[in-house]
Amino acid sequence: MASPKGKALVAQSGGPTAVINASAAGVIQSALADPDTFTGVYGALNGILGVLNEELYDLAAEDPAEIERLRRSPSSLLGSCRHKLKGLDVSRADYERILEVFRAHDVRYFFYIGGNDSMDTAAKLGRLAEEIDYELICVGVPKTIDNDLAFTDHCPGYGSVAKFNATAVMEAGLDTLALYTHDTCTVHEVMGRNAGWIAAATGLARRHEDDAPHIILLPEVPLVVEKFVDDVQRCLKDYKRCFVACGEGVKTPDGEYLGEAGGAFSKDSFGHTQLGGAANTVRAIIEERVGVKARTNRAGTAQRVARHFASATDAAEAYMVGQAAVQAAVDGVHGKMVTLVRAGGGEYKCTTGLVELEKVANGEKLVPAKFIDANGTGVTDAFRSYAGPLVQGEAELEIGSDGLPVYARLVQQLVEKRT
Amino acid sequence: MASPKGKALVAQSGGPTAVINASAAGVIQSALADPDTFTGVYGALNGILGVLNEELYDLAAEDPAEIERLRRSPSSLLGSCRHKLKGLDVSRADYERILEVFRAHDVRYFFYIGGNDSMDTAAKLGRLAEEIDYELICVGVPKTIDNDLAFTDHCPGYGSVAKFNATAVMEAGLDTLALYTHDTCTVHEVMGRNAGWIAAATGLARRHEDDAPHIILLPEVPLVVEKFVDDVQRCLKDYKRCFVACGEGVKTPDGEYLGEAGGAFSKDSFGHTQLGGAANTVRAIIEERVGVKARTNRAGTAQRVARHFASATDAAEAYMVGQAAVQAAVDGVHGKMVTLVRAGGGEYKCTTGLVELEKVANGEKLVPAKFIDANGTGVTDAFRSYAGPLVQGEAELEIGSDGLPVYARLVQQLVEKRT
Repeated sequence: MASPKGKALVAQSGGPTAVINASAAGVIQSALADPDTFTGVYGALNGILGVLNEELYDLAAEDPAEIERLRRSPSSLLGSCRHKLKGLDVSRADYERILEVFRAHDVRYFFYIGGNDSMDTAAKLGRLAEEIDYELICVGVPKTIDNDLAFTDHCPGYGSVAKFNATAVMEAGLDTLALYTHDTCTVHEVMGRNAGWIAAATGLARRHEDDAPHIILLPEVPLVVEKFVDDVQRCLKDYKRCFVACGEGVKTPDGEYLGEAGGAFSKDSFGHTQLGGAANTVRAIIEERVGVKARTNRAGTAQRVARHFASATDAAEAYMVGQAAVQAAVDGVHGKMVTLVRAGGGEYKCTTGLVELEKVANGEKLVPAKFIDANGTGVTDAFRSYAGPLVQGEAELEIGSDGLPVYARLVQQLVEKRT
Repeated sequence: MASPKGKALVAQSGGPTAVINASAAGVIQSALADPDTFTGVYGALNGILGVLNEELYDLAAEDPAEIERLRRSPSSLLGSCRHKLKGLDVSRADYERILEVFRAHDVRYFFYIGGNDSMDTAAKLGRLAEEIDYELICVGVPKTIDNDLAFTDHCPGYGSVAKFNATAVMEAGLDTLALYTHDTCTVHEVMGRNAGWIAAATGLARRHEDDAPHIILLPEVPLVVEKFVDDVQRCLKDYKRCFVACGEGVKTPDGEYLGEAGGAFSKDSFGHTQLGGAANTVRAIIEERVGVKARTNRAGTAQRVARHFASATDAAEAYMVGQAAVQAAVDGVHGKMVTLVRAGGGEYKCTTGLVELEKVANGEKLVPAKFIDANGTGVTDAFRSYAGPLVQGEAELEIGSDGLPVYARLVQQLVEKRT
């Protein structure tokens, strides 16, 4: 179909990353550069929540230097949310409300940067718009540190969290090497609730056999306590220390999250189980069953926004998918998400493609067996070939006169409500 | 006294840092460059433990390129330990054993890189050597991320942990900004058992009033729950979110560590209290008393060895104190520790001085009142003036073809035992 003339709205959703703002900058700068198509470029405060609340702001009113800086800034600076819309049958009023706001502001392009849930929302919104004959072009922009979106070679955000965590494990591994006579084991927990891509990435730090991480625990490989204890003991025998990289979503053979299986110490004061308790459970197993001291590291949210040591490859691709989304929209593409496509051949090269939003919404990509070693606790050369190029290069960083990074600050002056 | 001719032994002790190896490289390279004084330069595997076990290795046998790389490598790559020697009355046999090993290898210079305890050990060893008329020059090299050594303006290791943690808080603070509608509070725990220097340093990230950290909890300021709850509530009113930077050694007004005061969830499976549980207690207070969701971040050992974003100032000073220690020894100085001396005047400039080991051994420097704001939850401009220069510059980093840092690997081939 021919592209309508109207405003573009860009929104971010879900967990922040080190480079999701680069995707936003790619969308914003590309759209602002094409006033023939886009009569304005708005941001939504806190994702779809901002649309529901009609909390929108004019990105053309922001200082262009800050938009350029957005490209080098972590977290979701447009504002994000974890507000999940259900199916059209249940949440139809919400979708209608969104279209009401869009219509009031003549929003004809919706660029949604997020993961599965966001693609689901964008898909359903597009379907309803068609149904009520409101001309709207929805294009998805992939984002997730979890790297679990299907139909894309990898996800913007993953390369940076991989680079930071591999480096943190390399460094903390040297700490354990120095102090093994006292702190013999370290359990280093990383994010990834269902998929072990981030935990697997720490394996990139292991250049030599005795380097950390000695054991990687992936959500894809259920933790059998007896085997794990054997693995730790063998490691202690071989290296006098044991460094375990542990995905937060590691499960028992019964499918229970390890963070929920460890007893009282993995619960908070309300008795709520906190995911992210996996490392504590692993530590308890080591101390109780192996009988040596173990420490835990858990960077938490700091890992996913560690822009200070982000991958230049990731940052560039994140910007590229934002640009490609606008180009697709201008070309009349609708209801699709931009994907990253790895070219075949020796040298790493990556271009963009497109896939139906619905397909992405319902897909999930776990770490395949070919990337996991025979013992289930390490990564293969095939994984190294896959993930290695994604952590290449140090993303450009602006440092202030105070010696710390300088990141964007948007004004986000809300436009007047029309509904 | 005139300097004897003999071997130098260099050892590291206690918790690793991002730059303690730079100090070691300063000692090693300076000593190797002066064969007229130093007939050899040995390292001790795992600090004083390595001496007791006569596990020594010849640093002249290492590849000079790896020694140069040591200068840019984190952790304590000579090997460290947490083996504390008691007084001469109790541990005399250990001190005698050390001197026996020194005598067997003609070690006449002992360079000990560490904190209070290490300076205590070096002082006592020097005293016993004098007593038994064994000519030995002991020089201390300061090291601690905790920045709590007296008689030195600051400690090598502090500037880097300060830079990394301020940056991590800045970045995680933007994460909380993006997701405040869901994850309203974040409690970010940093190291520092007795002194709040590291927690204070996160205050450098707060360029604007609404920037994280909104509340800093220091071990120097007992946490009064009612006041803390008020502070959080005011913060939520003003900024819709609250980011707390929490020192691991924060205490209750009764002097109990917060990590031990929080109930069952701060204990491990043996019922042992784990220090480092402070953030969990603070999270529980926020969730229970304020009624909003809080997350915790705790980088653990990864923060103190985060060489990938270390301070260039810190790295240079760490090397400088190593060089100065050798120079002092050659000059016949004995029983002293090298200090960092800040020159007065506008521009930051730092030179070295010397202080008696005994004085350092018994001193401890907490964050003074003038560096803490009136509310007890922030830092003053005086603190910014003090700590700001220490985080300046990005330390040189070697990146491998795999996109990750390259750090030194020593061979550490043990020399033949002679006792």
